[in-house]
Amino acid sequence: MKKSILMLALASSFAMADEGMWMPQQLPQIATELKAAGLELDPANLSKLTEFPAAAIVSLGGCSASFVSPNGLVATNHHCVYGSIAHNSTPENDLLANGFLAQQPGDEVAAAPGSRIFVTKAVDNVTDQVIDAKTAKLSGKKRVDAIEANQKAIIAGCEKDEGHRCTVAAYYGSLEFYLIKQLEIKDVRLVHAPAEGVGKFGGDTDNWMWPRHTGDYSFYRAYVSPEGKSADYSVDNVPYKPDYHLTLAKDGLKEGDFVMALGYPGRTNRHRLPSEVSDTFEWAYPNTVAQFKDTLDIIARETASNKDAELKYASRVAGLNNYMKNRQGMLDSFAQSDFLQRKTQEHQALTAWVNSNSDNKKAYAKDLTAIEKLLKENQTKERANYLLNNATPRLLAASRALYRLAQESTKPDAQRKAGFQQRDIPRYKAFVAGMERNLDVGVEKALDLHNLSKYATLPKKQRNADFDKAMGIKDGMSNEQLKSLIDSWYANSDLTDPAKRTALLDSTPQQFAQSNDAFVKAAVALYKTDLKREAEEEELAGKIQQAYASYMRAKIAFMQSKGQAVYPDANSTLRVTYGNVKGRANGNEDGNAWAPFTTLRGITAKATGEGEFNAPQKQLDAIKAKQYGPYKVESLNSVPVNYLATLDITGGNSGSAVLNSKAELVGLAFDGTLDSIISDWDYNPDNTRSIQVDHRFMLWQMQLDGADNLLKEMGVK
Amino acid sequence: MKKSILMLALASSFAMADEGMWMPQQLPQIATELKAAGLELDPANLSKLTEFPAAAIVSLGGCSASFVSPNGLVATNHHCVYGSIAHNSTPENDLLANGFLAQQPGDEVAAAPGSRIFVTKAVDNVTDQVIDAKTAKLSGKKRVDAIEANQKAIIAGCEKDEGHRCTVAAYYGSLEFYLIKQLEIKDVRLVHAPAEGVGKFGGDTDNWMWPRHTGDYSFYRAYVSPEGKSADYSVDNVPYKPDYHLTLAKDGLKEGDFVMALGYPGRTNRHRLPSEVSDTFEWAYPNTVAQFKDTLDIIARETASNKDAELKYASRVAGLNNYMKNRQGMLDSFAQSDFLQRKTQEHQALTAWVNSNSDNKKAYAKDLTAIEKLLKENQTKERANYLLNNATPRLLAASRALYRLAQESTKPDAQRKAGFQQRDIPRYKAFVAGMERNLDVGVEKALDLHNLSKYATLPKKQRNADFDKAMGIKDGMSNEQLKSLIDSWYANSDLTDPAKRTALLDSTPQQFAQSNDAFVKAAVALYKTDLKREAEEEELAGKIQQAYASYMRAKIAFMQSKGQAVYPDANSTLRVTYGNVKGRANGNEDGNAWAPFTTLRGITAKATGEGEFNAPQKQLDAIKAKQYGPYKVESLNSVPVNYLATLDITGGNSGSAVLNSKAELVGLAFDGTLDSIISDWDYNPDNTRSIQVDHRFMLWQMQLDGADNLLKEMGVK
Repeated sequence: MKKSILMLALASSFAMADEGMWMPQQLPQIATELKAAGLELDPANLSKLTEFPAAAIVSLGGCSASFVSPNGLVATNHHCVYGSIAHNSTPENDLLANGFLAQQPGDEVAAAPGSRIFVTKAVDNVTDQVIDAKTAKLSGKKRVDAIEANQKAIIAGCEKDEGHRCTVAAYYGSLEFYLIKQLEIKDVRLVHAPAEGVGKFGGDTDNWMWPRHTGDYSFYRAYVSPEGKSADYSVDNVPYKPDYHLTLAKDGLKEGDFVMALGYPGRTNRHRLPSEVSDTFEWAYPNTVAQFKDTLDIIARETASNKDAELKYASRVAGLNNYMKNRQGMLDSFAQSDFLQRKTQEHQALTAWVNSNSDNKKAYAKDLTAIEKLLKENQTKERANYLLNNATPRLLAASRALYRLAQESTKPDAQRKAGFQQRDIPRYKAFVAGMERNLDVGVEKALDLHNLSKYATLPKKQRNADFDKAMGIKDGMSNEQLKSLIDSWYANSDLTDPAKRTALLDSTPQQFAQSNDAFVKAAVALYKTDLKREAEEEELAGKIQQAYASYMRAKIAFMQSKGQAVYPDANSTLRVTYGNVKGRANGNEDGNAWAPFTTLRGITAKATGEGEFNAPQKQLDAIKAKQYGPYKVESLNSVPVNYLATLDITGGNSGSAVLNSKAELVGLAFDGTLDSIISDWDYNPDNTRSIQVDHRFMLWQMQLDGADNLLKEMGVK
Repeated sequence: MKKSILMLALASSFAMADEGMWMPQQLPQIATELKAAGLELDPANLSKLTEFPAAAIVSLGGCSASFVSPNGLVATNHHCVYGSIAHNSTPENDLLANGFLAQQPGDEVAAAPGSRIFVTKAVDNVTDQVIDAKTAKLSGKKRVDAIEANQKAIIAGCEKDEGHRCTVAAYYGSLEFYLIKQLEIKDVRLVHAPAEGVGKFGGDTDNWMWPRHTGDYSFYRAYVSPEGKSADYSVDNVPYKPDYHLTLAKDGLKEGDFVMALGYPGRTNRHRLPSEVSDTFEWAYPNTVAQFKDTLDIIARETASNKDAELKYASRVAGLNNYMKNRQGMLDSFAQSDFLQRKTQEHQALTAWVNSNSDNKKAYAKDLTAIEKLLKENQTKERANYLLNNATPRLLAASRALYRLAQESTKPDAQRKAGFQQRDIPRYKAFVAGMERNLDVGVEKALDLHNLSKYATLPKKQRNADFDKAMGIKDGMSNEQLKSLIDSWYANSDLTDPAKRTALLDSTPQQFAQSNDAFVKAAVALYKTDLKREAEEEELAGKIQQAYASYMRAKIAFMQSKGQAVYPDANSTLRVTYGNVKGRANGNEDGNAWAPFTTLRGITAKATGEGEFNAPQKQLDAIKAKQYGPYKVESLNSVPVNYLATLDITGGNSGSAVLNSKAELVGLAFDGTLDSIISDWDYNPDNTRSIQVDHRFMLWQMQLDGADNLLKEMGVK
């Protein structure tokens, strides 16, 4: 593995305690800090991606998880398997409400279509291959095309090892690239989920909140072919035998103890420019929050007396609520902070440093000016297309994607656009199949009407003529007319029929062109417009990549010159964050603080017997009877439920294994807190806390739920 | 001063951090602990009662206070001067609502009648004089009489120094006695009180609660004759010049800092027997809480549309609410604790130790058995008289006291019953005068009816025949009949006329006997019964004193044998408690904790513009404008308002000066918290916190209120 300038930079000291989402291979360089925080193991032993503990950590694609038995048992958050529970739920057998427990392997059920477990097998720095000498000289679309071609070649080479999924991930704003090779486990089965009154206790009310009492854990199992290869679901498949798995901690976890979380944080934005901060917090997020609120209201209204539709949208509702609360939390924090001002000052300092000598000037000045202009251009485009993008019906979006797939499929695989290659087809299949369980025409029509009415009332010149023509939108249409128009789309479409949707996966461009389906016809009609728009976007993207990489190079050099080090922003690759179990001085009101642990007492106090706080009666009875078993913590006089830690996590970290100083499992990270999630942009050590479900609560509840088979499998009983 | 066995016991180590209400003279013996907690001064320098800082600490009789200027300016709690503010308030000039500030001495107003400032001048151990050789051999009423005679003689000797008030205080359950000599300042004037929306911010809702934002400070000034002697109010009087006064801290106070409170804690019960605990928590407190709740409801109803009556009862309502919340808080804590069980086990251990060898057995065994029987006897009596005592109208109680005073006044002073001597007459005068501002016949009639209806419905044999006869109560009276009876009392009484009440102070027993006033006639009629009851009570009290002192001696010896030391229960004498500024791990709900400081932000958050949270607009504006002046604490990003400390305080400590490690004033203690007030009986270091108003808030608010004259006087400006 090539040692980058960034990793050299890490040899210097770190300003912020507990801040940082470290690449595992960086850990030896922060050995002093890890030891000071309480790690008992040698950091060098944690840095190898194919050994313990990193090799026990897996990605679910959007969530993190970990092997907790030699037989492929995977622990993650309840909210990470929520879609799979919903997928297996029916009004008659509501697994969401009642929970699910397979007492033996044969009882396990298939996870939602498209569910995957990704086991990282290798990580390599491929920067010099992605931006090779030839590419480095290109600009605009040509640069994007060259980068894409290089990436595709690297990926194709990697994926010759069948059953693996390879990704080229960009680090430091596309300054560096790593190839991640992962075993793609396709036969994923739901093993156990507690009742929603445990796993989602507190619901959206408590989401992003403390004190918290959510038993946010569930279990999948990874299955492979009898030969141990990645395989689609089959009754002949066998549990995957991971090379390494985590074991549960024997000693109690207490305030101040070292903890580290291993997972796949999705995205942070700590290296962004001031103009990006302003665009995001002053335009994008406020609009998103408003849009999501409308969407949730409409879904709630349309599913109010339709249990089947409600179940279909349960996962999306959960996601939207989560996302909306997250963004609103960030907006609230932003309103009270001087973040933009500081960011601007920092950038001015960087600019001054760049202009302070001729070498710096020569190396960075041009790109530093250019990036501002390019980002502005991009923002203008995004704002212009905002309502149009919102107004795109889901079935049109699906048709466009599948038509593009059909078009690309006519080319040799290597020449196909990234995302439309042979390797991507299973995801399209899963996407199309999944719609059966997450699409209701009534709900979609209502959402379409809401979004279309906003777009259609724009002045004609702000609308997209091609889109209008393809979808039959005319100037000055009334809401009634729009409603009729939308009705006509669905009346003239077969795509609400799963078989018809599935057929599109194998259709040729000619078959698409001959279709009379309203959405398919529109997709075909918009194809040239779409390609043109894509080319324009890529022209800009190429320029941005070049200038942004240069800006990051300047920033790293500048920080190095001040003795400060840089870790890369999160990008959905495996990271380690370390810290301590710790409460917080700033609580929910003036004069209150946060204790590091919650206990079973809080469940009893919050339980209402219904809705979001519908703790199971059996659980409440056990609490009342003080049936704590071996999980009681004397100092708490109860069983700990959730705890706070100074772990630097973000979305994607959900389900991350949290390990103690001996690398034993002590819980699963599942949330941050509302006033600290702005740390995705602006890290605040006073406020930032991760929320974990305590392993002792998980075991206590599993015992109560009769999951002795799993406790035994994990070596607990 | 005689060194007691108890003080020798203190040479050993102490089990509980921060527990203890120490006599100042004991401080050198806990020097190690004081230093460890952070005291910078030599503990020996804090132990002299007539030097700094003890000499700057004064008692208001029920509250604590301190001199804060060389001109007799006294700082205490707003709630300690509440009666004086109410006394000077009228519907037209509502000082309670608006606050009060004398811009110059001439504007100061007389405090409520009976207001006193007691300046301790000497403290001496007089055990051997109170229980002299002769007394030690007596028992029952004879013992009580002898003790009383000795105490009266000691007091009379002490009070030959005119203008002083002397008290013989019992320590360790009447095992030891100290003579306290205090200068009695009678000309007390109200100097400054903030608006109720500051001084009582949060009202009864926040009382005993955290987070807290109460500006519970106010100022009196002590006046004496031009010769420097104690004197009644006179325009010729001059401000008292104390030998010592406190100065305000220059440095900021922060979490973990050493603090100590000096004040007059009223009563604790940490040395009580198990049967006393059970009687109190299982019978007395529950009854008191119910009775006070009824009383408050009746006062609220009767004063609802009567502003004058409301003001008259404001002080009593505040007191009842405070007391009720305190007792209910203790009851809640008791219900959740194993206190009685532990107390019983401790007592069993003591009993076992007493019986473990013949010396102990000989010394203590008899009394240890006796005390249980005697306490049981006392409890039985109290329960029997409970409803009767409640049913006694205030004007009857006053008449009885004044008739007894008239009877005692016929004897030479030294032979009069304690409490009815010449020295006590001013208090009776104040009591009678004060009724004008705190008695409303409508309210009293309603209270009488409520209480009498409970008593009158008892079976005849459980009632008191003498009381029934004197008050005209007959078997089976209906509520209407009781109402008429009560109306007839007041119709046939002049005592609602202040002049008639005052006249009773100078009436002879013969004049009482000739009175046709309903209450006076009843008092005269009940006199013999009252004396008989008193004699019976004293017979029991004498036996209890003897046995209880022996029990305490045994307990101290037992604790000494285990290397544990004993400090005396609080008894309204000067004590020092030390500790640190400290939040709490257990907050108001599971998973919350308490921060050590509240800030101005919390005032804004709580303010409603009315009722208990009626923060002045001027204050809210200043907070909004961040006009923090020099009182801002950077780490809080605001001005601290209240703070928590591990100070061991109780009722009577209200207004106590809280000093830092240099003995500079850093605030005033004003409250404990609801779940820690059971510490009066059962000290819990995890829960027990005192609440202080921060000196910085006091100064900030005084500046805002234009009290520059006082800030200057205190050396702040």
